[in-house]
Amino acid sequence: MSRRIRIIVAYDGTEFHGWQVQPGRATIQGVLEEIVSGIEGAGVHVAGSGRTDSGVHAIAQVAAFTLTNPIPPDNLRKAINRLLPPAIRIFSVEEVEADFHPRFDAVAKTYRYTMYRGEIVPPFEARYVYHHPYPLQEDQMMLAARCFEGEHDFRTFAAKDERYTNGQSTVRTIFSSQLQRDGERLVYTVRGAGFLKYMVRNIMGTLIEVGRGNIAGNALPPRCGATAPARGLTLVKVEY
Amino acid sequence: MSRRIRIIVAYDGTEFHGWQVQPGRATIQGVLEEIVSGIEGAGVHVAGSGRTDSGVHAIAQVAAFTLTNPIPPDNLRKAINRLLPPAIRIFSVEEVEADFHPRFDAVAKTYRYTMYRGEIVPPFEARYVYHHPYPLQEDQMMLAARCFEGEHDFRTFAAKDERYTNGQSTVRTIFSSQLQRDGERLVYTVRGAGFLKYMVRNIMGTLIEVGRGNIAGNALPPRCGATAPARGLTLVKVEY
Repeated sequence: MSRRIRIIVAYDGTEFHGWQVQPGRATIQGVLEEIVSGIEGAGVHVAGSGRTDSGVHAIAQVAAFTLTNPIPPDNLRKAINRLLPPAIRIFSVEEVEADFHPRFDAVAKTYRYTMYRGEIVPPFEARYVYHHPYPLQEDQMMLAARCFEGEHDFRTFAAKDERYTNGQSTVRTIFSSQLQRDGERLVYTVRGAGFLKYMVRNIMGTLIEVGRGNIAGNALPPRCGATAPARGLTLVKVEY
Repeated sequence: MSRRIRIIVAYDGTEFHGWQVQPGRATIQGVLEEIVSGIEGAGVHVAGSGRTDSGVHAIAQVAAFTLTNPIPPDNLRKAINRLLPPAIRIFSVEEVEADFHPRFDAVAKTYRYTMYRGEIVPPFEARYVYHHPYPLQEDQMMLAARCFEGEHDFRTFAAKDERYTNGQSTVRTIFSSQLQRDGERLVYTVRGAGFLKYMVRNIMGTLIEVGRGNIAGNALPPRCGATAPARGLTLVKVEY
């Protein structure tokens, strides 16, 4: 009898080459698949709600896999956590319907991008922020952030190495897009139905261009800034 | 004209073999001496307020060195931070009297030891806490923590590899010693005039024995528990 298992997993992505399995490289999916396959005694595919890039973090990534092993969910969580490095932790394990898919069933995702505006980044935060102590018109950036809300064609803000030419839509719906100050941090939080590759980091890079005065802040920016560094990005939540 | 420079330095000690220079190993003092010597164009000794062990962190370690280079303090701070890895940051640089010594002039030091009591340590905290989710009589530990206050012979709580036999006193004065709950964290904060090697980690290990019911909590413990892991320890403050 096979069981569908949903997990919520947090990770510090600093030392990993992103979510997706890559031969010969440490990835979150790779580490999870190795451990879960060991418990099952057979190869198990762990599906995620979406890939995170190399160096990106997650507070609550959602993933799922199918097991025949009858181990109770709580024991499974403990067993996996015992084998994981401290940089990856599973916070929840539950049995779900057989057809649950973490990617296709997701209705919203929330990402957070953190810039550190102070002159000196405390060593304990350095892995989780992008240090940008230079002058920026933050009020203009805050205005511009709101302009991403709604349904738009985000082709301009997709990864440049992805073509999105095979009839794939680059239209996405953003429910909320806000930039706020939190002490020395400038925090961008975006919740949407789905995201293109590099989209959040490209929006952040674009907001920085707005802050520099190179792009107006009163409308959806017509062009994209440089992709902001991965370390500032965290997948915060996936909703179903 | 030589100048005495005092710096306040924070570090994530995870990847370092402690404060003190060791040939062929990355240490905080070693990294600082290399950078400052490069700026001076000659070998510079960087004295610290005290050694921290391998893996121990600091929010505000104090160090000092003597330079002939006339570079203004703010520029010196920026120059050193530019060359340091992100795990080490200098928060303050100032010129002080020629005879200032960070170790001999210190009148008090504060350390903090953090245990994580919850079942799952968030990956973003894993480097800075000792995970101990097992049952402990925390009220007894809190009582026992206070018993370390005052002037005592702490020989029992010194590192076992140090003999302290050459007439060196092992009497130390502790101004405050408190254990408190902070959410899932159990935080031990100790402020004293001086500490023996491993003393804070040994006190923490002793408090754990009290929590297990192996040592009574109503008096200064007569024996020492196992040295608690380095990663939970942070040097918080040095007073002059």
